[in-house]
Amino acid sequence: MTHAPDALIFDVFGTCVDWRSTVARDVAQVLPDVDALAFADAWRGEYHPAMRRIRDGNRGYVALDDLHLENLERVAERFEADAPASLNTAWERLDPWPDVVAGLTALKDIAIIAPCSNGSIALMTRLARYGALPWDCILGAEIAQDYKPKPAVYLAACQALQLPPKAVMMVAAHNDDLVAARACGLQTAFVPRPTEHGPSQTTDLAPSDAWDIIAQDFQDLADQVAAKR
Amino acid sequence: MTHAPDALIFDVFGTCVDWRSTVARDVAQVLPDVDALAFADAWRGEYHPAMRRIRDGNRGYVALDDLHLENLERVAERFEADAPASLNTAWERLDPWPDVVAGLTALKDIAIIAPCSNGSIALMTRLARYGALPWDCILGAEIAQDYKPKPAVYLAACQALQLPPKAVMMVAAHNDDLVAARACGLQTAFVPRPTEHGPSQTTDLAPSDAWDIIAQDFQDLADQVAAKR
Repeated sequence: MTHAPDALIFDVFGTCVDWRSTVARDVAQVLPDVDALAFADAWRGEYHPAMRRIRDGNRGYVALDDLHLENLERVAERFEADAPASLNTAWERLDPWPDVVAGLTALKDIAIIAPCSNGSIALMTRLARYGALPWDCILGAEIAQDYKPKPAVYLAACQALQLPPKAVMMVAAHNDDLVAARACGLQTAFVPRPTEHGPSQTTDLAPSDAWDIIAQDFQDLADQVAAKR
Repeated sequence: MTHAPDALIFDVFGTCVDWRSTVARDVAQVLPDVDALAFADAWRGEYHPAMRRIRDGNRGYVALDDLHLENLERVAERFEADAPASLNTAWERLDPWPDVVAGLTALKDIAIIAPCSNGSIALMTRLARYGALPWDCILGAEIAQDYKPKPAVYLAACQALQLPPKAVMMVAAHNDDLVAARACGLQTAFVPRPTEHGPSQTTDLAPSDAWDIIAQDFQDLADQVAAKR
């Protein structure tokens, strides 16, 4: 059995916040004639391809805010919609899943908590203010100047906290994020978010490996972490 | 008159926390035979010389925690004291000045708040947890990989927030910190801490320039920032 972690670091989009329905809400307001959920899915669909060039070293680090804006222009063209650049700030106003604030608050009493997201410091800061996410600090892609699942991102988070990877637990609703974190020596916790991609989601419905913790939600996660102490 | 800032960034040692009496408290506990305040002053006295080599480009970026430890060894030798390395964590348990938590809490309602300190992310995170400082994120030397008053540190903080310098206000009890911030285009606020160096302090008792805000304490600062809106 592993020891209780000194810090927990979190994936954010999908794991902490419901990006799909809240981006769609903003899209519907600005572009009433498009299928807002389809637009949100298409916008998010450009996420990994946009980061890939940077991960592969074919482009220097560019903050996710800028990638989101480039992707917005691409998707708007495909939907033949005249999307204003201001729609990009939708990503700063994503609702947390209902268990997140209470769970993080409980966890903060027993360990350092921080996002380890591909979002920028600016985006994570504004998102935390919008959703009242009580982070101790903001870690993630910008600290590493690279994107998950590259090892540099997980290792830079541990280094910024001056903790060895084994004292840090990565929390995610995505198995591939945990595969990468475990390969770096971090502890791992899986929290399923079976409607992140809508009611017909087929991915990440269950843990793919024996992660150190498998929790129903963030409150359950807090209880299980507390029980390790 | 300048506009209300979208973010306020803060010097921490001296401006937010009373490092001298709290470091001396820990020194007194571990080294009962030395003059604890003199030891704290000597330890802090090694601060600027240690950073100078890095600022001047003669040494790569080294986190302040490591500089503190090197300085501890140097000062302990001078005091002929056998200081344990664990004493270095005294810098993670510095008491905020009495007005700080209430003032920051009020400011957080109207703007982003973050430290812009020479302390590391790890140190600032632990210090915030100890003193319940409600930062939105942690900025400062580590983000810039350099030390104040180098312009890179102020500019990296603005860039991390994706704000122009004129939308960011630097808050400090040290005039030289504000001189450097103003040269980078930031707004400036001076809050005197006339006993940072003890009862016979002679430096930074008053503002040296016409800073954008001159406040009695953090509550007054919050009131003055709110009045600009």
